[in-house]
Amino acid sequence: MPSDRLLGGPGVAPIATSVLLALAHPALAQPLPSWNEGPAKEAIVRFVKDVSVRGSASFVAPDERIAVFDNDGTLWPEQPIPVQLAFALDRVKAVAGDHPEWQDKEPFRSILAGDVRTALAGGEQAVAGIIVASHSGMTTEAFEAQVAAWLATARDPRFARPYPELAYRPMLELLAYLRENGFRTYIVSGGGIDFIRALSQRVYGIPPEQVIGSQGKVVFELRDGRPVLVKLAQLDLLDDKAGKPVAIHKHIGRRPIAAFGNSDGDLQMMQWATAGPGPRFALIVHHTDADREWAYERAPGIGELKEAMAEAKAKGWTVVDMKRDWKKVYAFE
Amino acid sequence: MPSDRLLGGPGVAPIATSVLLALAHPALAQPLPSWNEGPAKEAIVRFVKDVSVRGSASFVAPDERIAVFDNDGTLWPEQPIPVQLAFALDRVKAVAGDHPEWQDKEPFRSILAGDVRTALAGGEQAVAGIIVASHSGMTTEAFEAQVAAWLATARDPRFARPYPELAYRPMLELLAYLRENGFRTYIVSGGGIDFIRALSQRVYGIPPEQVIGSQGKVVFELRDGRPVLVKLAQLDLLDDKAGKPVAIHKHIGRRPIAAFGNSDGDLQMMQWATAGPGPRFALIVHHTDADREWAYERAPGIGELKEAMAEAKAKGWTVVDMKRDWKKVYAFE
Repeated sequence: MPSDRLLGGPGVAPIATSVLLALAHPALAQPLPSWNEGPAKEAIVRFVKDVSVRGSASFVAPDERIAVFDNDGTLWPEQPIPVQLAFALDRVKAVAGDHPEWQDKEPFRSILAGDVRTALAGGEQAVAGIIVASHSGMTTEAFEAQVAAWLATARDPRFARPYPELAYRPMLELLAYLRENGFRTYIVSGGGIDFIRALSQRVYGIPPEQVIGSQGKVVFELRDGRPVLVKLAQLDLLDDKAGKPVAIHKHIGRRPIAAFGNSDGDLQMMQWATAGPGPRFALIVHHTDADREWAYERAPGIGELKEAMAEAKAKGWTVVDMKRDWKKVYAFE
Repeated sequence: MPSDRLLGGPGVAPIATSVLLALAHPALAQPLPSWNEGPAKEAIVRFVKDVSVRGSASFVAPDERIAVFDNDGTLWPEQPIPVQLAFALDRVKAVAGDHPEWQDKEPFRSILAGDVRTALAGGEQAVAGIIVASHSGMTTEAFEAQVAAWLATARDPRFARPYPELAYRPMLELLAYLRENGFRTYIVSGGGIDFIRALSQRVYGIPPEQVIGSQGKVVFELRDGRPVLVKLAQLDLLDDKAGKPVAIHKHIGRRPIAAFGNSDGDLQMMQWATAGPGPRFALIVHHTDADREWAYERAPGIGELKEAMAEAKAKGWTVVDMKRDWKKVYAFE
């Protein structure tokens, strides 16, 4: 398990790792090469310099340099559907043979007929059913292996690339830049914690203990004397909106000094991070580039950005205009 | 908040810190000077050497060198009552003026009359009432300040010392020794996570994000536009027995390779840690020294050690005989 996670599974091009390695030595490169010059890049660099100057009023001890990142839509795309949902749909197909009852039951019938649009028309309840069916009943180790195996072969529908290659190159540079400057980078996602942990080290250089996400209940069992943890079909923590600062408190027990998101689901996390004393930073990734990625903000459901944008304007948070501020979006460009 | 936590509150002698500093440089000292020579010390040193020899079959990458420690009874005493309960009793007295109804209501009436024995005679329900009354209704920041203020003046009933001075010196040496050898040390306690986090850096050199414990529900609120987290009177996670490996999975997402405890509450954590591949280590602190500390194992309730001791014998886990194996118990000796 450890070596698989650390070395990357078979068949997955270690593209993100190579980006991270190329950026690992501060002297080798100017920071943030995939960012265009402009107010967003300037604000990031100024903040990092401010907290790093020992003896200055704005200095922050490295222990307290904690930066939290939303995942879907902030570190990689969440359109046309979130990556974890693509995984869940494929898992439903993979295990359908064990569930003959699904042939007559939505949303499974439509998934098996290849009609994702109809399957998802049932909204949150349909998605919850798909997640439960694909994320429970197995041990945590079996689930991790399923995610790794899927990542090795799955391709995104638009670019036909392995999903790890879709990580935004400017954000990988930003993660590396922060870490070079003594920050610890955390993911704080509405997505499932076990799913993200199965890929976070490989894709983002973020170890599992620095991943926070929504969680299902897990129970300890002895099976033939061997201890296992089994994933149950019951939500334990929804790491979204006001749940994000709560989850940050539970996991980290410190208030982050920087928060990065892309939707109203990240608003409270940004409010919490920026309300502490000393230098604080919040950044919103605004999806403005339909040619290279996607352009959206008022889509109901995934990625809605209304309240957080209003607060960003009122409080002077940094807003990234993807089209204007990012020289490259993906490493494969 | 950060600086207070990192520097230690006013009035608390930084005794543990000085021990840690003295041990910070490997070349300065043989490992574990407060441990007598014998099988327990030998087993620890052998395990640490095994995982550290690069290229050997028993080598473990530093990222996976995770060691988990129970707190009460493993890192400091849990007798005559756990430290957190002493805090809770004092808090009840401190806020009694706001609760005239407590004068006629157990367990509060007995606490206010100075009769702790009667107050605790109500068992788990009484303790739960005391914890709820003293651990909810305030912001997380206010609670942390209350713990820090209490630690600055409270003294344990037996040695009349500040509680941080009761941390077992051999265990502080063990924590430092493991960290010198690339381990990350975590606390995994049945006690409250927010209570332990308020002291873990100062007492044990363990940062808040490496503390796992029982948790009450916390809710995010905007008060006059200022975001706060408020502690509620509702248990969210009981980090004891089978709850320990579950909490470890939630927080760390990796299986520890070493686990340290002192009671049946730590059994499942030890089973989980030792069931993985490669070198594994489990150690039980056995309270055998009534002169210097306490001698107990079959006390119902706190510190009961029956199943875990049987399993330790069956599986060859290391058992520390406090009287025989520890040259010193406390730094002040």
